[in-house]
Amino acid sequence: MFVTVLLLLVALSARGGHSEETEEAQRPGHVSVIIVGATGDLAKKYLWQGFFQLYVNQVSSGNTFFFHGGGLSPADKGTPVLFEALKAVSCSKDVSQERCAVLKDQFLRLSQYRQLKTLEDYQELAKHIEQQLQEEGMTEAGRLFYLSVPAFAYADIAEKINSSCRPTSGAWLRVVLEKPFGHDFRSAQLLASHLGNSLKDEEMYRIDHYLGKQVVSKILPFRIENREFLDPIWNKHYIERIEIVVKETLDVTGRIPFYDQYGVIRDVLQNHLTEVMTLLTMKLPKNVSSSEEVLQNKLEIFSSLLPLAKNQAVIGQYQAYKSEVQQELNKTKDHVSLTPTFAAVLAHIDETQYEGVPILLTSGKMLDERVGYARILFKNDMFCLQRHNGIHCKPKQIVFYFGHGDLQYPAILVSKNLFKPALIDSDWKEVTEHTDVSVLGLSISDYYVQTPTEQREAYAELISHIFAGCKNSFISTENLLASWSLWTPLLSSLASSFPRIYPGGVDNGGLLDVRLKGRDISYNSEVVIITPDQMGGTSANDFQVMQGKFRSADMVSAWAEELVERLAVDIQEAAEAAVRESGVFHLALSGGSTPLALFHRLVLHHFSFPWRDTHVWMVDERCVPLTELESNFHSMHDHLLQHVRIPYYNIHPMPVQLNQRLCVEEDRGALQYEKELSKWVNGSSLHFVLLGVGYDGHTASLFPGSKVSEHGESLVALTESPIKPHQRMSLTFNAINRAHRVALLVMGKGKHELITQLSRVKDNLDKYPVTGVKPDHGTLVWYIDYDALLG
Amino acid sequence: MFVTVLLLLVALSARGGHSEETEEAQRPGHVSVIIVGATGDLAKKYLWQGFFQLYVNQVSSGNTFFFHGGGLSPADKGTPVLFEALKAVSCSKDVSQERCAVLKDQFLRLSQYRQLKTLEDYQELAKHIEQQLQEEGMTEAGRLFYLSVPAFAYADIAEKINSSCRPTSGAWLRVVLEKPFGHDFRSAQLLASHLGNSLKDEEMYRIDHYLGKQVVSKILPFRIENREFLDPIWNKHYIERIEIVVKETLDVTGRIPFYDQYGVIRDVLQNHLTEVMTLLTMKLPKNVSSSEEVLQNKLEIFSSLLPLAKNQAVIGQYQAYKSEVQQELNKTKDHVSLTPTFAAVLAHIDETQYEGVPILLTSGKMLDERVGYARILFKNDMFCLQRHNGIHCKPKQIVFYFGHGDLQYPAILVSKNLFKPALIDSDWKEVTEHTDVSVLGLSISDYYVQTPTEQREAYAELISHIFAGCKNSFISTENLLASWSLWTPLLSSLASSFPRIYPGGVDNGGLLDVRLKGRDISYNSEVVIITPDQMGGTSANDFQVMQGKFRSADMVSAWAEELVERLAVDIQEAAEAAVRESGVFHLALSGGSTPLALFHRLVLHHFSFPWRDTHVWMVDERCVPLTELESNFHSMHDHLLQHVRIPYYNIHPMPVQLNQRLCVEEDRGALQYEKELSKWVNGSSLHFVLLGVGYDGHTASLFPGSKVSEHGESLVALTESPIKPHQRMSLTFNAINRAHRVALLVMGKGKHELITQLSRVKDNLDKYPVTGVKPDHGTLVWYIDYDALLG
Repeated sequence: MFVTVLLLLVALSARGGHSEETEEAQRPGHVSVIIVGATGDLAKKYLWQGFFQLYVNQVSSGNTFFFHGGGLSPADKGTPVLFEALKAVSCSKDVSQERCAVLKDQFLRLSQYRQLKTLEDYQELAKHIEQQLQEEGMTEAGRLFYLSVPAFAYADIAEKINSSCRPTSGAWLRVVLEKPFGHDFRSAQLLASHLGNSLKDEEMYRIDHYLGKQVVSKILPFRIENREFLDPIWNKHYIERIEIVVKETLDVTGRIPFYDQYGVIRDVLQNHLTEVMTLLTMKLPKNVSSSEEVLQNKLEIFSSLLPLAKNQAVIGQYQAYKSEVQQELNKTKDHVSLTPTFAAVLAHIDETQYEGVPILLTSGKMLDERVGYARILFKNDMFCLQRHNGIHCKPKQIVFYFGHGDLQYPAILVSKNLFKPALIDSDWKEVTEHTDVSVLGLSISDYYVQTPTEQREAYAELISHIFAGCKNSFISTENLLASWSLWTPLLSSLASSFPRIYPGGVDNGGLLDVRLKGRDISYNSEVVIITPDQMGGTSANDFQVMQGKFRSADMVSAWAEELVERLAVDIQEAAEAAVRESGVFHLALSGGSTPLALFHRLVLHHFSFPWRDTHVWMVDERCVPLTELESNFHSMHDHLLQHVRIPYYNIHPMPVQLNQRLCVEEDRGALQYEKELSKWVNGSSLHFVLLGVGYDGHTASLFPGSKVSEHGESLVALTESPIKPHQRMSLTFNAINRAHRVALLVMGKGKHELITQLSRVKDNLDKYPVTGVKPDHGTLVWYIDYDALLG
Repeated sequence: MFVTVLLLLVALSARGGHSEETEEAQRPGHVSVIIVGATGDLAKKYLWQGFFQLYVNQVSSGNTFFFHGGGLSPADKGTPVLFEALKAVSCSKDVSQERCAVLKDQFLRLSQYRQLKTLEDYQELAKHIEQQLQEEGMTEAGRLFYLSVPAFAYADIAEKINSSCRPTSGAWLRVVLEKPFGHDFRSAQLLASHLGNSLKDEEMYRIDHYLGKQVVSKILPFRIENREFLDPIWNKHYIERIEIVVKETLDVTGRIPFYDQYGVIRDVLQNHLTEVMTLLTMKLPKNVSSSEEVLQNKLEIFSSLLPLAKNQAVIGQYQAYKSEVQQELNKTKDHVSLTPTFAAVLAHIDETQYEGVPILLTSGKMLDERVGYARILFKNDMFCLQRHNGIHCKPKQIVFYFGHGDLQYPAILVSKNLFKPALIDSDWKEVTEHTDVSVLGLSISDYYVQTPTEQREAYAELISHIFAGCKNSFISTENLLASWSLWTPLLSSLASSFPRIYPGGVDNGGLLDVRLKGRDISYNSEVVIITPDQMGGTSANDFQVMQGKFRSADMVSAWAEELVERLAVDIQEAAEAAVRESGVFHLALSGGSTPLALFHRLVLHHFSFPWRDTHVWMVDERCVPLTELESNFHSMHDHLLQHVRIPYYNIHPMPVQLNQRLCVEEDRGALQYEKELSKWVNGSSLHFVLLGVGYDGHTASLFPGSKVSEHGESLVALTESPIKPHQRMSLTFNAINRAHRVALLVMGKGKHELITQLSRVKDNLDKYPVTGVKPDHGTLVWYIDYDALLG
């Protein structure tokens, strides 16, 4: 017998991460449901209804139930309120009126209000449950706490549950939490760690009610059921864009004290839209019911998402919001809230599969209609030679329609010119007769339409999943933190941005339409908004690129962005000229963070850069393996080389590692690089050398106090840095000064002091190595941004 | 004085390639125009009118003219025909009727028919010209021969001109040729070389009359004038597709003897549409009037175009064509012509700028309308939050409208949501008032529209360019051959393809609509065409992938395409499993041509291949520099590595070149690679090794008769090949047989003999090295295509 059970357990756990829990849930017994915040809005509107449905579904399962409605009010005050809420529950259509009346009556008798405020209240609750179990001789299956209370109360309640309400005897404990789960990455982490003191991860069920929406929870199964059709087209070659849109018509009056702290990004994008995005783009799990595999695949998407910065978002605020805030928060007339009530954010997944596919997440209050959908629009792969009405000439798209809008019901719509989706799940049916309605540019008759056979409330769905221990529909801690680490930097960078003010409703017209520009997003129409801090002072645009002299060499100066733009253009021109003359361009690049902006500029804007004929050399390298993050080559590789089509042979990392060791004199790595240079580069004269300068005046890896005279005639040398890693390999001044052109790029306020000194001192290689940059026959240009130049 | 002239010449030639010629053309003098084929259709329709216009424009320039209309008929027969043609010429609107009458009268008097058949005829012509010059005491400016005759006569006429009609005294000679310029690359090359015996390249003016169309000749200037707007968007990030379309309603009755030899690809795509494509995509010349720079930039496009094969084209033939051919060529009822009268071809430019942008070239007879245009459709970069009529929500496109169609006049149209194009050229004007007409999906009022102030005939334009010596508007030999080398392989591969039969006119409906699939194009609708050779036999689809045993190892067999598909899937699965288990996948690939199909499959279809975690190793390498075409690495680089996002550090070419020499024993390259293997690969056991097998039974670079026992324990060795280059570096059987999985890929009928032998022989390393592949603990799978298996 023991052997059999053991085998069974092994078999079950092999089936996937959560099967053991499912197994537990299916062991019949007594279940105590405790809703903390049982008389709040959410409970009244959705939770009691959801638990009633659970009760109805489970009534003949052998499980018994008791429902505790907990609140802060004493029993005499809470009981009547709860009673009102309970009276409102209803049965689904397939239950007869008489049966429904019986069930409701039973449900009412099994439900009781109790005050849950102090530790003693929780201890009494526990005592009560145990008494009940004992009196009725029941085995306990589990305890389900649903915390429908503000998040700040979570940690405290969890502690109370942990210290006094844990079931004994191996029954399960499940604690359900409602968003918000923190305010940013740090607070979410803090909250998670607080909760972690009291509850195990598998005991926590974080609700994102979008995951309970029938269409949303169908996304993965739909992708799997139709993978034969979808696999070939679910990639950058076919997908034109993905839009995830939740438009609301309501404002937030009455909720301002909460909303003004959060705003639309935290309220909708960070959770609901992000979850939909991961479901749409994650790798399909081999086993869709393995919550661990699903989670891992979701986390992969998070780790592939390009960071979100200011340029990836636009925000808006409906006009009346300002006065609502003033009223509800008792603020004066000059109070300005920057909380966005509308946002559109452009995400990109940096994976070969989705490279370049724009993913637009957008949501807002006070828009022209209430509707929610995720739309995968495919590229137009047809060329129709003459005008006709063939369906194949129309747009191809798949729409996961959450509900409302013109269609009014949840559905999955697939353009008929794509494929006819499978219909495997008996909970779904095909809709073939419809009143004529247009959905996202296509008539409904141009789609295959599937809809749930029965529409179910998200909360009822999720409550049944909690009861089944099905963790896939909930937000794990890792998932939550991954999402916050995506959104937090964006939220910080937007913290002081002025949202565009929109009138609300259809009057918004095209005001909130957005334009996608590569990885950036912006409002299409330009509206001049005078913000208080812009009224005085000068803006960046008042300055142009300035040319002058610095240390008797040419100097170009501008604000950082324009400076980098100019440098990129200069390098491209040098490249084109070199390729024209000699068929090849030899470019040496420095390490460090300063050139990164240049790399990005080259990657994103210089498509016609002659990379095929360009050789990239290193100015200097740290003596660490090339594969390490610290390596100059590594950063150049990740930010530049990986993104352009440069032949493998044209890339020349410094041989800092030879014979399995780093920068050992006898391995003669410096000499090897020198030989490589002379082999490829005519007269070892590089066409363009990009240098930076350190706070201490070093350039390349030639530091103050190092004896450059010892380099003799060498073009490459091993050098020592005062900061770790100490060992370096560097081009020497012999190599640098042979170049046709040398650019010295200096950026940031932190370099102002140095620039001031350099403008005064004479050449002094020992103190300011950078003063040794003096091309023999070539030209030197300093690129100094206004921050470094003017401080 | 001498110095001044010299300086002037230097200054002129610095201005661009053709300025010297222009200068010559502007030196007034006597010009003899000789139209050979002066009474043919083309001459009657366009040429005499063109030359009359030239005469009108030049009448007050100081030049004098004489026009010789040459033909094969004797003078008494030719003269009246010519007279009819001359009477039909007309003046442009800005010339008064009286003046026109005077000019026409002069023109008629200056024009004369003469028989041009024998060498004597040409000698007499020359004598006549010289007499004229002498009698009237004129300086000769030049002689312009316009050969409006079938191409087979070119070489002969050119020889006669060369031997007897060359001007003396430094006047210019220009010979104008009409297409077709050959039938394929070889015939074009032959024709070019024949003509080259008689004429210098600069004396030949090959006409492509599309280059004389006002809109076509405006493409480059338009791109330059608007480069500020176009530069940022003229690339793959913004352009969705380019369509170059010439639709005709006419059939080819009466022209069949010519047309049936050529078909639409040679007639329209190889020349007109290709020229438009190069104008649209070439790098902008610094100097648009430098014919040399323009040519160089055009040639760059040709060299970047991906080869065109069968999958890049669909062809059609209008239904009535068959009987027209039977009639005009006196064929029987069962005669079938495969000549296409419709074609759609998908081109791609393999440059970072245009990577992945589909360029569709299409043309046909008997279509629903007569229209010609090139359309650059931009990606939709807008997201419009609510329905409204804002122009910014509409498609963005630039249309170079050659004429006809709904618009009826030549124009350049730019969507108003793109930019307002510059209007610099006084020959063009903006159209602001129009009758409502829709052009390519947009109302005319949604465009900025520019049109020539005066519509001019292409031939008149080109004749004036010939007179001005402006070579940009003509097809140089290099350009011509580049175009033929693009089109010839496609024409050969289509030679035995059955065109889809279409009814003609609007009845075509959606029959000729095409679908773009990656780099391939196909008809959208499937029509079952039973072709004679398909009626018997079995088609490729009748076979599926077959599994079995070969030399007591597993074998997978299928037709080549499916075999490669299967192997790609197997490699990806192995990769995913390895990455799951150990975070990394080590793959060793063989050289040679067999794996190329696999590389393409991986690049184009396996987007989720875990390249980031894959290391690529070489099975063997030839002792040549990696940068040479012969190198195995080079081919792997160009066909695979360059197209996937694999980190630089994960690529492991064999170190065949060390210390500036190739495969020298003392440099210990083999040992170095062995060390690299053991450093990265756990136990030096590669996850997947892909091998091929040569006709002689060799695998990797382990050849018959080589003493593999000498390799001892080594994993990598220098070996000798019986074929050049003899020196190789190769994994040894020690390395191969350590692998977790080895695949042996064998494809093609040529390998059938070997496969038959291998199926019978015992292990014999000396005679059949491939029999040494016996993984110690891993698995071996043979992938053999049906051609190799079944012969």
